[in-house]
Amino acid sequence: MKSCKVGIVDTMFARVDMAAFAIDELKRKFPQVKIVRYTVPGVKDLAIGCVILDKREKCDALMALGMVGGVAVDKTCGHEASLGIQMAKMKLEKHIIEVFVHEDEGKSEQDLYSIFENRTRKHAVNAALLAQGGNPLADFAGKGKRQGRKDAGSINKK
Amino acid sequence: MKSCKVGIVDTMFARVDMAAFAIDELKRKFPQVKIVRYTVPGVKDLAIGCVILDKREKCDALMALGMVGGVAVDKTCGHEASLGIQMAKMKLEKHIIEVFVHEDEGKSEQDLYSIFENRTRKHAVNAALLAQGGNPLADFAGKGKRQGRKDAGSINKK
Amino acid sequence: MKSCKVGIVDTMFARVDMAAFAIDELKRKFPQVKIVRYTVPGVKDLAIGCVILDKREKCDALMALGMVGGVAVDKTCGHEASLGIQMAKMKLEKHIIEVFVHEDEGKSEQDLYSIFENRTRKHAVNAALLAQGGNPLADFAGKGKRQGRKDAGSINKK
Amino acid sequence: MKSCKVGIVDTMFARVDMAAFAIDELKRKFPQVKIVRYTVPGVKDLAIGCVILDKREKCDALMALGMVGGVAVDKTCGHEASLGIQMAKMKLEKHIIEVFVHEDEGKSEQDLYSIFENRTRKHAVNAALLAQGGNPLADFAGKGKRQGRKDAGSINKK
Amino acid sequence: MKSCKVGIVDTMFARVDMAAFAIDELKRKFPQVKIVRYTVPGVKDLAIGCVILDKREKCDALMALGMVGGVAVDKTCGHEASLGIQMAKMKLEKHIIEVFVHEDEGKSEQDLYSIFENRTRKHAVNAALLAQGGNPLADFAGKGKRQGRKDAGSINKK
Repeated sequence: MKSCKVGIVDTMFARVDMAAFAIDELKRKFPQVKIVRYTVPGVKDLAIGCVILDKREKCDALMALGMVGGVAVDKTCGHEASLGIQMAKMKLEKHIIEVFVHEDEGKSEQDLYSIFENRTRKHAVNAALLAQGGNPLADFAGKGKRQGRKDAGSINKK
Repeated sequence: MKSCKVGIVDTMFARVDMAAFAIDELKRKFPQVKIVRYTVPGVKDLAIGCVILDKREKCDALMALGMVGGVAVDKTCGHEASLGIQMAKMKLEKHIIEVFVHEDEGKSEQDLYSIFENRTRKHAVNAALLAQGGNPLADFAGKGKRQGRKDAGSINKK
Repeated sequence: MKSCKVGIVDTMFARVDMAAFAIDELKRKFPQVKIVRYTVPGVKDLAIGCVILDKREKCDALMALGMVGGVAVDKTCGHEASLGIQMAKMKLEKHIIEVFVHEDEGKSEQDLYSIFENRTRKHAVNAALLAQGGNPLADFAGKGKRQGRKDAGSINKK
Repeated sequence: MKSCKVGIVDTMFARVDMAAFAIDELKRKFPQVKIVRYTVPGVKDLAIGCVILDKREKCDALMALGMVGGVAVDKTCGHEASLGIQMAKMKLEKHIIEVFVHEDEGKSEQDLYSIFENRTRKHAVNAALLAQGGNPLADFAGKGKRQGRKDAGSINKK
Repeated sequence: MKSCKVGIVDTMFARVDMAAFAIDELKRKFPQVKIVRYTVPGVKDLAIGCVILDKREKCDALMALGMVGGVAVDKTCGHEASLGIQMAKMKLEKHIIEVFVHEDEGKSEQDLYSIFENRTRKHAVNAALLAQGGNPLADFAGKGKRQGRKDAGSINKK
């Protein structure tokens, strides 16, 4: 596996240290991957955070980690943040794996915590694989893969 | 028919191997078309997936194949993904045929499966034709063509 | 009237041959205008269709002709298509007259057909006039002009 | 006060001659300001109208004057038009003062007419001031200024 | 702490002098930071205001301060303004800390006033820190930080 660099941008707004999950996952499974990190205030700052981090550190792929709050205005902010990330991807011509957790996704705080952990760890693997080029996710195409919860799985013809 | 290259980008999130339909259709009907493929995590990664694949492989046209989940946040993701694809088209100055299936479109899993197959196969033909330049779809203009279901057909003046 | 070129991009999805109305109108009223045409699958392909046609044919103004289907997902597609067309205008620095008909606009199929014809013909005139430069629509400013239905007319101070 | 040029783009769709208000206001209060005008079909054409007018006439600031119709599809058009104007501002690196009146804002036609006049005149002043550079609106910061209706005024700490 | 420049763009529409809070906070806590300010009409003018101010003054980071009105059309304007700000960040490759207060957020005018003050002061600190480069917010990552109200705090695993 080639050496490469993954940039992680996270927020002060999120209620869980998402980057810690990503870093732990990468260190365990991809010890040769270099990790750089940058923290911004909230989800709307993630897109520019990725651009700034990539300018400084020339990453091979990036992760944008954030939490979307539970009220209506937060949902709009999350949408704006996502569109900003689409713009940033076009600008950098690189993957930015968006890992968003919605505060109202969990049945309880502990359930929410486990969604944060599961989604971030799984996407850290995706980011590390894509950072190395080639077509590393080909074997999982159409498999109903999910991050944050159990895989939905494939639908097969009967 | 000229030789050309179609780039196919698909996802791990989809519950059906959409690219397999596209590849099978292209191989049968357009054996001279070269096919390249790249798999990304989900629909929001399709736009940048097309940009990255095209940078590597210089395609004549691309397909972006994805499934949009059934809950509200998935619909928003699908919308963001589509806008990202519009940005990618402007950047590449090439067709990216967007083939999105919504998980809640089918009456049953088998019905959903057939929508996946029908829509992807029909759009693979469109992509291959457009990849060759000229104005290959002119005969079908205004004919109420549909992918995934039966054609709606034309409305004629009475 | 100066000679100029109008590019027409239309779709297979529409249930009426919108380009035929535009071409007929232009030929009758602006016989000196050169017309080029390109057909794409659906409304989301119109923006890139305009970019591709303009690259090939260097138009003075373009028309993007499409039908938006009647269900919720179609409305979202129409919105995405429109934003793509805004992007394409910025890129080309040219008018792209967007002529969208919503499938649920008509009271009947015949009413819908007449909206298609009326809106497309009127906008073809706008496109031809704008293609020639200057400020050709100045006399109609603030007049409540409508395409597809009767003019709303001006509101005057009493 | 420096000499400068304000570009005014208006529409055939609007039911009031908005540009006439802007021109009258500018001529009275800013006789040294040069005015150029360009009329487009509807609100979605305003962004590209500004780009085209600025290319021809090199303006110091622009105004985009339009009416948004009262039905749901019109609201979406207004939103698309506004996003296009955001794109145009980024492209031109100039102010484009957006003056939109919604057809359903008025209690009566005469009330609507007065909103058209009030909003357009007030924004014409803003455009003329901004066109001259510096920071001409600093004295009004946080004052709850409104165009089209009475100022909301400031909230003060008690 | 390095010397740097923060650009502040605010509006006439807001009902509180937001920039005054930001300037006071910066002068007290970051006396070495240079401050430049520019006032625009409303939230939709903030993005271009940032671009224009940065062109004149070469800022290290910017703040976009605005109030979103309480009726439906205002919400849409706020959304358009936010997307414009995402575009501006991509263009400038700099942080623009968006500080938006919604007129309907407060339980009373005084509550609203305190949200204005709290949110603007806290974000002024973020802007000043980010303006100096490095990764100054790392210690607050995932801490559930809020501006305008009390911090939500972290969720910990039990």
